Amino acid sequence: MEVINYLLGYEKLKVYQNSDMFNFSLDSILLPRFVSINKSAKNILDIGSGNAVIPIILTTRTVANIDAVEIQKEVYELGKKSISYNKLDNQINLYNMDINDFYKEKQTDYYDIITCNPPFFKVDKESNLNKNDYKTIARHEIKLNLDDIFKISKKLLKNNGIVAIVHRTDRLIDILQSMKKYNIEPKKIQFVYPKKNMESNIVLIEGRKNGGSGLKILSPIIVHNQNGDYSKQVLKYFN
Amino acid sequence: MEVINYLLGYEKLKVYQNSDMFNFSLDSILLPRFVSINKSAKNILDIGSGNAVIPIILTTRTVANIDAVEIQKEVYELGKKSISYNKLDNQINLYNMDINDFYKEKQTDYYDIITCNPPFFKVDKESNLNKNDYKTIARHEIKLNLDDIFKISKKLLKNNGIVAIVHRTDRLIDILQSMKKYNIEPKKIQFVYPKKNMESNIVLIEGRKNGGSGLKILSPIIVHNQNGDYSKQVLKYFN
Repeated sequence: MEVINYLLGYEKLKVYQNSDMFNFSLDSILLPRFVSINKSAKNILDIGSGNAVIPIILTTRTVANIDAVEIQKEVYELGKKSISYNKLDNQINLYNMDINDFYKEKQTDYYDIITCNPPFFKVDKESNLNKNDYKTIARHEIKLNLDDIFKISKKLLKNNGIVAIVHRTDRLIDILQSMKKYNIEPKKIQFVYPKKNMESNIVLIEGRKNGGSGLKILSPIIVHNQNGDYSKQVLKYFN
Repeated sequence: MEVINYLLGYEKLKVYQNSDMFNFSLDSILLPRFVSINKSAKNILDIGSGNAVIPIILTTRTVANIDAVEIQKEVYELGKKSISYNKLDNQINLYNMDINDFYKEKQTDYYDIITCNPPFFKVDKESNLNKNDYKTIARHEIKLNLDDIFKISKKLLKNNGIVAIVHRTDRLIDILQSMKKYNIEPKKIQFVYPKKNMESNIVLIEGRKNGGSGLKILSPIIVHNQNGDYSKQVLKYFN
């Protein structure tokens, strides 16, 4: 079922969603808030944009041109509708392409910033998945894996450009190793915890192409109070 | 001046300190609480024990034999006094040695657990340090550096044995790289934040020799309330 939803904390912005595909999650709202955006940034790329939540929120922080790439035709169509609804067609260019094709065609050293809320789950031979399902492609590393993100970033980012992703915390070591492999220096990490006394399940991480060392671990994000409501901290982010 | 102090949260334990040398810090209290201790553990090593705070606290959690190594004679003497005062001479063996000598003499694959609260600061050629000063040796990587800890752990730990350290958060990438170099898999990390909205300054990290992948980021430790008092969370740890 297709519905139109407000974006938490962004009164004027709305996105189209289809519950048969997937709904945007808190991850997609935290990432565009987390990423460092320099005032001089001219070009931003969002990889695997889904219904374009990340690019749409980014427009509240920057006037940079935003390219966004989404492989799934039907999801891309929702994204197009959301961009048009919010009158952001001039700032956001949404491409219905496989990012692995897009990146081959695109010139090197072009973007100041790359963002990505990628598929979270590894796929192995035993994974019994419907590889054509919308949700499967959005959630599993079928069309895009962790290593792809940093390979793409290495080529497409300007020197000292920034890539920021959101991912499952249990992939942290994989993320750091992949960043290192492509000479992207981790500069900023923020861990997200479901509740105060629980382990982190989500991590926000930002790296800089050919950057110097020096990593900051930002203050923790605790999503829910003990009673299950959103915490004051998270609600405040979006006021 | 030499004084005897209670150990926060451990009513029956006291340690001798000398304010001309250094005082134990929260780091040394968090580490022996953080480290995973299996009931079957027989031998534990604490590297750079200072006045033996870590081994003394460890005795509240295990009956294992604890070897502790401290290079500085005068600090070692304080440690000996503290161990005797607490009647722990049967469980803790404190050696006045350079760990880099101790480890060469010691048999391989001996310890179940290694703990270390190492010197935190890098030394470069420009560092203008009094290399004989107690505090300098305790705080700067003159006699022991990060890489030494994991080199030593690789040799002295049993297969699947555990090494746990406390360090400055800005050394996290160095720590992870050094662990990887010696085939010690990071398994558990806990970030410590001075206050709720500040960056992490201290990290607790535990790895397993030849361990499988799978890293947990434990719930954050927030040390102080906004007014500067110890947080309920930290005080509760020691009740």
